Amino acid sequence: MKTGFIGLGAMGEPMARNLARAGCLTGVFNRTAARGRRFAAETGVPAFPDPAALAGACDAVLLCVSADADVLEVVGRLGGGLGPGTLVIDCSTVAADTAREAARRLARHRADFLDCPVSGGTEGAREGTLAVMAGGDTAAFERARPLLEVVGGHVHHLGPVGAGQATKATNQIMVAGINQAVSEALAFAAAQDLPLSQVIDTLRNGAAASWFLTHRGPNMVAGRYPLGFKVELHAKDLEICRTMAARQGVQLPVVEMTLLHYRRLIAGAHGDEDISSLFRLKAALFAAGGNDA
Amino acid sequence: MKTGFIGLGAMGEPMARNLARAGCLTGVFNRTAARGRRFAAETGVPAFPDPAALAGACDAVLLCVSADADVLEVVGRLGGGLGPGTLVIDCSTVAADTAREAARRLARHRADFLDCPVSGGTEGAREGTLAVMAGGDTAAFERARPLLEVVGGHVHHLGPVGAGQATKATNQIMVAGINQAVSEALAFAAAQDLPLSQVIDTLRNGAAASWFLTHRGPNMVAGRYPLGFKVELHAKDLEICRTMAARQGVQLPVVEMTLLHYRRLIAGAHGDEDISSLFRLKAALFAAGGNDA
Repeated sequence: MKTGFIGLGAMGEPMARNLARAGCLTGVFNRTAARGRRFAAETGVPAFPDPAALAGACDAVLLCVSADADVLEVVGRLGGGLGPGTLVIDCSTVAADTAREAARRLARHRADFLDCPVSGGTEGAREGTLAVMAGGDTAAFERARPLLEVVGGHVHHLGPVGAGQATKATNQIMVAGINQAVSEALAFAAAQDLPLSQVIDTLRNGAAASWFLTHRGPNMVAGRYPLGFKVELHAKDLEICRTMAARQGVQLPVVEMTLLHYRRLIAGAHGDEDISSLFRLKAALFAAGGNDA
Repeated sequence: MKTGFIGLGAMGEPMARNLARAGCLTGVFNRTAARGRRFAAETGVPAFPDPAALAGACDAVLLCVSADADVLEVVGRLGGGLGPGTLVIDCSTVAADTAREAARRLARHRADFLDCPVSGGTEGAREGTLAVMAGGDTAAFERARPLLEVVGGHVHHLGPVGAGQATKATNQIMVAGINQAVSEALAFAAAQDLPLSQVIDTLRNGAAASWFLTHRGPNMVAGRYPLGFKVELHAKDLEICRTMAARQGVQLPVVEMTLLHYRRLIAGAHGDEDISSLFRLKAALFAAGGNDA
């Protein structure tokens, strides 16, 4: 299947490289043209001058861009190049409503749409081990599966268009809560003068075990927060979750609390750190409490 | 080492049975005498008439009781039976300050004290796979280790007296936060009409993975909350965490939020359910939001 890729960012670029390596990448497009030319020079896969030209040369187009408006803009710019059955696969993390709107606009061209946000970070993107959460028609999903299995290690079809984004939002809420759990508990442990590395070793095999404790707890022990996943990006994703819940008249306490904390981290110039730097705020609670006391 | 056991409750009774099976249980004491007599009839290990008599016959005494006051009461009642080097091992979950007070009182009799709260539930107690979190002198810990390895599968020495309780408190804070994370995220997923079992399968292999999602998420899908770990007991433990943090002038947001939620569950006659029934409240947010909209 001739495949195009749009959006050669921190996630998209390694995903596109894996498609190129698998021999199924026909061309790329990137808004900043220099990055597309560099990719072409390095891989031999041509950079196209605009999305429509790329769509015209392909059976499937994957997107990986930053925001809801970017997805709808790219979908609009594919227009002239789309034919019946062109498969558009959006790997960006955006609202489920945006996925449904993209699908409606593409249906006018009789093109098919799947929302396929991914999880697993730039490391998973490089290694092709991303978790892929797909929403859309089963037939379209089955056509896309071989491509999705090139970019990801675990490919899941969760339901109709929007279900991929809703599942990704669920993931982001859960990670927010686990970050709250691990950072608050370890800040408490530090204030009790416990040896944090031994505490992690003790708790990681019981009911408190989590991927985050094992893989991000050590950041908190060391007081260093290399990426991982940026505070600013998680905050962006949690805003999406907040909007989705608000449409049902609901405020989510874990999401609200975490957004408040992330805004403080961003204001303190920590927005580019890994989200485990939430530990800074939790530890500061005890420092302030101690000073007040 | 001749060993006694005090407190044949839901956790203590199976722990004492494992010590009896290992051939190192000299006697037991239980406040409700009938339970002690039943244990004696079933195991052949005698029930003693009071804690001092038991302590007088033993080199080590393990306790597993409910509350801080109970620990100090039992320690007081051991008095006449204690000799230099008698080892008192408290497996109850209480405040670190209570552990330090118990150690001070026992030191007057030249008896040694270890705080050794456990984690892993009645199932872990039966199977002898509990995580044991020990605080106290290294020499006392090394003397106790063979006994602790009979009741637990993972035995950790975290520091001086109090460090075991502080680590257990850390564990309980972390579990509270993860319960918040999993229940809020899955309630959101349900409101998005996602297939919850598939969502769990998707998320349990990524950055949102936790023991709790894998082992308690299915309760939330089924809307049934068998034990596990009771809401009322976790609330009791979180009150201990709250008190420990308050002594440093700190309120812990995850702890405060979870206590608020648990009080609502208890008021709604759900205090005897597993803590995963927090999902009830999170799902009700969306039901109420939907009705208001």
